[in-house]
Amino acid sequence: MFAHSISLAVAEKIVDEVLRQGRERGFQPLTVVVLDDGGHIKALKRDDGASIMRPEICMGKAWGALALGFGGRELARRADKMSMFMNAASDLAGGKMVPVPGGILIKDGKGTIVGAVGITGDTSDNDEICGVEAVKAVGLTPDVGD
Amino acid sequence: MFAHSISLAVAEKIVDEVLRQGRERGFQPLTVVVLDDGGHIKALKRDDGASIMRPEICMGKAWGALALGFGGRELARRADKMSMFMNAASDLAGGKMVPVPGGILIKDGKGTIVGAVGITGDTSDNDEICGVEAVKAVGLTPDVGD
Amino acid sequence: MFAHSISLAVAEKIVDEVLRQGRERGFQPLTVVVLDDGGHIKALKRDDGASIMRPEICMGKAWGALALGFGGRELARRADKMSMFMNAASDLAGGKMVPVPGGILIKDGKGTIVGAVGITGDTSDNDEICGVEAVKAVGLTPDVGD
Amino acid sequence: MFAHSISLAVAEKIVDEVLRQGRERGFQPLTVVVLDDGGHIKALKRDDGASIMRPEICMGKAWGALALGFGGRELARRADKMSMFMNAASDLAGGKMVPVPGGILIKDGKGTIVGAVGITGDTSDNDEICGVEAVKAVGLTPDVGD
Repeated sequence: MFAHSISLAVAEKIVDEVLRQGRERGFQPLTVVVLDDGGHIKALKRDDGASIMRPEICMGKAWGALALGFGGRELARRADKMSMFMNAASDLAGGKMVPVPGGILIKDGKGTIVGAVGITGDTSDNDEICGVEAVKAVGLTPDVGD
Repeated sequence: MFAHSISLAVAEKIVDEVLRQGRERGFQPLTVVVLDDGGHIKALKRDDGASIMRPEICMGKAWGALALGFGGRELARRADKMSMFMNAASDLAGGKMVPVPGGILIKDGKGTIVGAVGITGDTSDNDEICGVEAVKAVGLTPDVGD
Repeated sequence: MFAHSISLAVAEKIVDEVLRQGRERGFQPLTVVVLDDGGHIKALKRDDGASIMRPEICMGKAWGALALGFGGRELARRADKMSMFMNAASDLAGGKMVPVPGGILIKDGKGTIVGAVGITGDTSDNDEICGVEAVKAVGLTPDVGD
Repeated sequence: MFAHSISLAVAEKIVDEVLRQGRERGFQPLTVVVLDDGGHIKALKRDDGASIMRPEICMGKAWGALALGFGGRELARRADKMSMFMNAASDLAGGKMVPVPGGILIKDGKGTIVGAVGITGDTSDNDEICGVEAVKAVGLTPDVGD
């Protein structure tokens, strides 16, 4: 279905499942992106009522996870313990790194990173729940950085 | 009064009322902007005696509120509790996000965001008072993030 | 179908129809975005095999059309006749303006701009054909800048 | 009425007169800014229907005039004859310089620059006409760079 990176067919399913999860759970309107293993967008959707900077935020969560190779929860821990490093990394990245939960690595059966999903709109914990469920729903493995 | 977003006629009234409020209350010279729901300027005025960076600051207050969908008071709370997230968001926004009171969402009767007003010049609390009064004066609903 | 701007439901249909058109016509892999009337992403998809900068390019086509209020074909004409202006505008926009065909304004029945679609991957003319067909397919009016 | 720089009271009159001129002449929706002699916004208005990047463009016209001390018509001539210089100047300015007609220096009776007005929305020539009339209407002298 894919070799090194996630296909559009799988990325679409993850994006749609994230939105479905958010609506079913009564969360705030979500915005979600799936990036390939090179950090480039495969699919992104912003639900009606989501605020205007949400696309950049979900991209920052997913890109940050790929950039350092950890899920957002580990990025958040490092941001707490090593704030100077994360500030420097954010500058280095031209700002496009958001170190909070809701950035999730997507791994295949061998543990290879094939992409990442970023979600924003509700609390970071709730954002993450939707992403985890959506990655599992397509038979892949979410890595939130626990 | 407006169709898709706030009209210039309404934005002008808000801007002028903010300046009038500030002068009547003896506040420091104010600068005020009204942005439409997409974050683009409709009207901006900087009173005589206001310092040179005030336009960027009031734009950052209003834009930050629209960007995340919260009034400035909630942005300030999040900046306290989640400083890394707000730093990252500020970097992501190229700096144009100022998370303090004085950035106010403007909502219509149905609760839909139709724009935002940003005020700077006096204390953030005083800036906010003028904005709240001005939004009410045109029959719309201010959301300061309380 | 949409209130203040294009809804996600309509944006999704346009994005999917653009990809379907491109595949049916045997075009190179396309990348397509729909922006709302404020220039913010509603939906974006990059087909398998599309190169890595395609998301930024299609966003630049759609954003440029909204930024100046003309379809990409008119932006291209102006870039020919007034190259200094378009260079300046591109610098002013931080680079996120691509003045070629394939950036299409989306208008409602009253001629109001409700968003824009940007397509890239094949020739600009072919990109545009897919966008025009997709906007028509949802009952809205494409404005390519002719 | 003002010493080194234009007052808000005068800037407001210029901005409103530009919009009035544009509407009376049946021009496309205009966006207009008045900057003080330091290049900082005093007043800006974007008429309903004007596209989203218009504030930046009118600021770029007015700022460019102040930056080099010539009206936009002279900037345009230099852009033609010395394109490398104007490209470099644009880069140096972080992009905020738009070398076309519609950026007009505002001078007092002694020929001192007290600010600048920038207009965009219709053709550059039409933009300029509205600015010239508005500066004259407040008893000041427009310098378009002729």
